[in-house]
Amino acid sequence: MVGLAANTNVDDLRSQVVEMKPIAAGMSDERCALELEATCLRAGTELASGSEALTRIATLAEADLVVNALVGAVGIEPTLAAIRAGKDVAIANKESLVAAGSIIVKAAEEAGVSVIPIDSEHSAICQCIRGESRAGVRRIILTASGGPLLDMSPEEIADVTADRALSHPTWKMGKKVTIDSATLLNKGFEVIEARWLFGIGGDRIEVVVERKSIVHSLVEFVDGSVSALLSPPDMRLPIQYALTYPERVRTSFGSLDLETVGSITFERPDRLRFPCLGLAYEVLWLGGTAPAVLNAADEVAVGAFLGGRIRLGEIHSVLREVLALRKPSAADSLEAILEADRWSRLKAEETIAAKYGSPAA
Amino acid sequence: MVGLAANTNVDDLRSQVVEMKPIAAGMSDERCALELEATCLRAGTELASGSEALTRIATLAEADLVVNALVGAVGIEPTLAAIRAGKDVAIANKESLVAAGSIIVKAAEEAGVSVIPIDSEHSAICQCIRGESRAGVRRIILTASGGPLLDMSPEEIADVTADRALSHPTWKMGKKVTIDSATLLNKGFEVIEARWLFGIGGDRIEVVVERKSIVHSLVEFVDGSVSALLSPPDMRLPIQYALTYPERVRTSFGSLDLETVGSITFERPDRLRFPCLGLAYEVLWLGGTAPAVLNAADEVAVGAFLGGRIRLGEIHSVLREVLALRKPSAADSLEAILEADRWSRLKAEETIAAKYGSPAA
Repeated sequence: MVGLAANTNVDDLRSQVVEMKPIAAGMSDERCALELEATCLRAGTELASGSEALTRIATLAEADLVVNALVGAVGIEPTLAAIRAGKDVAIANKESLVAAGSIIVKAAEEAGVSVIPIDSEHSAICQCIRGESRAGVRRIILTASGGPLLDMSPEEIADVTADRALSHPTWKMGKKVTIDSATLLNKGFEVIEARWLFGIGGDRIEVVVERKSIVHSLVEFVDGSVSALLSPPDMRLPIQYALTYPERVRTSFGSLDLETVGSITFERPDRLRFPCLGLAYEVLWLGGTAPAVLNAADEVAVGAFLGGRIRLGEIHSVLREVLALRKPSAADSLEAILEADRWSRLKAEETIAAKYGSPAA
Repeated sequence: MVGLAANTNVDDLRSQVVEMKPIAAGMSDERCALELEATCLRAGTELASGSEALTRIATLAEADLVVNALVGAVGIEPTLAAIRAGKDVAIANKESLVAAGSIIVKAAEEAGVSVIPIDSEHSAICQCIRGESRAGVRRIILTASGGPLLDMSPEEIADVTADRALSHPTWKMGKKVTIDSATLLNKGFEVIEARWLFGIGGDRIEVVVERKSIVHSLVEFVDGSVSALLSPPDMRLPIQYALTYPERVRTSFGSLDLETVGSITFERPDRLRFPCLGLAYEVLWLGGTAPAVLNAADEVAVGAFLGGRIRLGEIHSVLREVLALRKPSAADSLEAILEADRWSRLKAEETIAAKYGSPAA
């Protein structure tokens, strides 16, 4: 561990600096950074702060692998910087691939570095295609737990409370991604990520519901054989896999007892109940900045849902309206993508305000 | 296709010689071979016959891959000959691995050739460990359809008719292997095969029942991740994989629809109902010629069951008795293995005759 960065979480970063004495630590929030100065001095750790902090840590000369677990579009630039500095990147930041997949993949190819997914689904696909040729892949099948609303009627889903939508059956995650799991848009974002990570068209990426989250994804090859990756639902596994790739390192957790698992069931996701999933395929087809627009509008819409301004079922309408407002432009630069992101947030806010009212003061 | 061989099936071999005009054809039965002479002459195909025929075909200079789908111990010698002649061997002949696994694997290592399984389970394991290191494997989990008697009580199984035991739910196979599937000894033999093919102790090879024969086997790695290979139950898939390995070739059959599959259930095989499965682990532990003894005695016992001389439940007693008659000797040569095979057949016949009476005239 040679570098660490955070935004405002001084306490955790401090204890990690004390424990690991990295070469450098970064804190995006400048006021928070001040609180870390003494600790870094004692640890012999360089302290970077402010808007440059993330890029500084992502490009440390001593790093060979950069783990990007940032939340939001702020994660895109450090991913690009790390790649351009010749680092392999283990990626948990969705926006790097959802909004900026085309430029990230191109940059990684040019730099000859690997982008290794940390998401359990994409890690599973990575493991399924190990030792296989890309031309041998016929189809990728992403599994979805289905989220907390799987068995509700479309009417119930449309009106569900935030508390209920936040009660995910399997994974403990942040609020935004948990709501995205409830609408299945999160699975849609994963389709987009898979499209870029594995260089395969959206028409060959499917989603299937597997409620137990034991099967993390599957890959069908051209001969008809299907490889699946199973494990107990434990994020430590894909995180470790990304850290030690291509080696596998022994763990004492996570042994799967198939007889205890019993049955595994595959179900088709209901497009009527979960129309947001279709939006992901639509923006892949639209191309350019459309995925960035969808992602940014969704962040605003989910915020509006959590704030009680719109109903869950209205997230889809907001997204569809924002997407209809703009012809997708080329996603050929970070600037173009960030511009689309900003535009989309603005339009999503305007759409919600016009239709459902302004936020409470 | 440069060489073809059969025992007595003149008609099929003739039509294949006409169609494929191989460099050589072999017929073990010398009288049958005479019937093929004119056809081979017209096709410009060399005709080998008698006891040398199989070895001649298995060592043809023009062959780079030999498919051994012989039934019985007669298949061991051609496997060894092919390996020593530097050929990769795609193997469906169980005895080569069950009875002679130690010398086959040693010979293949010395010759630097691959032994590629055709069995769906072992083909699945092969595919699961593609691109993985052997040290990364923690456990192999062989799946079993469970055979036609899975839900019967031990008493019903002991007394089942040959017709009922021959009605396998999934696979159409020869009578011997179908009865072995009913007793699960076939799965035991596959455990022994896996031990040699993948160089992993029997204590790390498990058997789990999956009735639909969709999951063909699984491999657990040291980190706890489990790779599974799924496909519709269609033997053309593993056969093609062995023929084209390491390439995958496009097929139009065999696409798996997970939603149609619905549920996949894993169950522990019942050791009380299927005691023959335990015998396989026992002979692996005994080592030496013990697996050859088990295999040969089973051939006799299954014959006696199909001939109406013993009940299905008595197969296990016969096998156990024969195994108890002899301390296993070293399986260090083909001769030692074939001697154990002959001895075991004799003792199995004696045991059955003494306990259950001689065959009907």
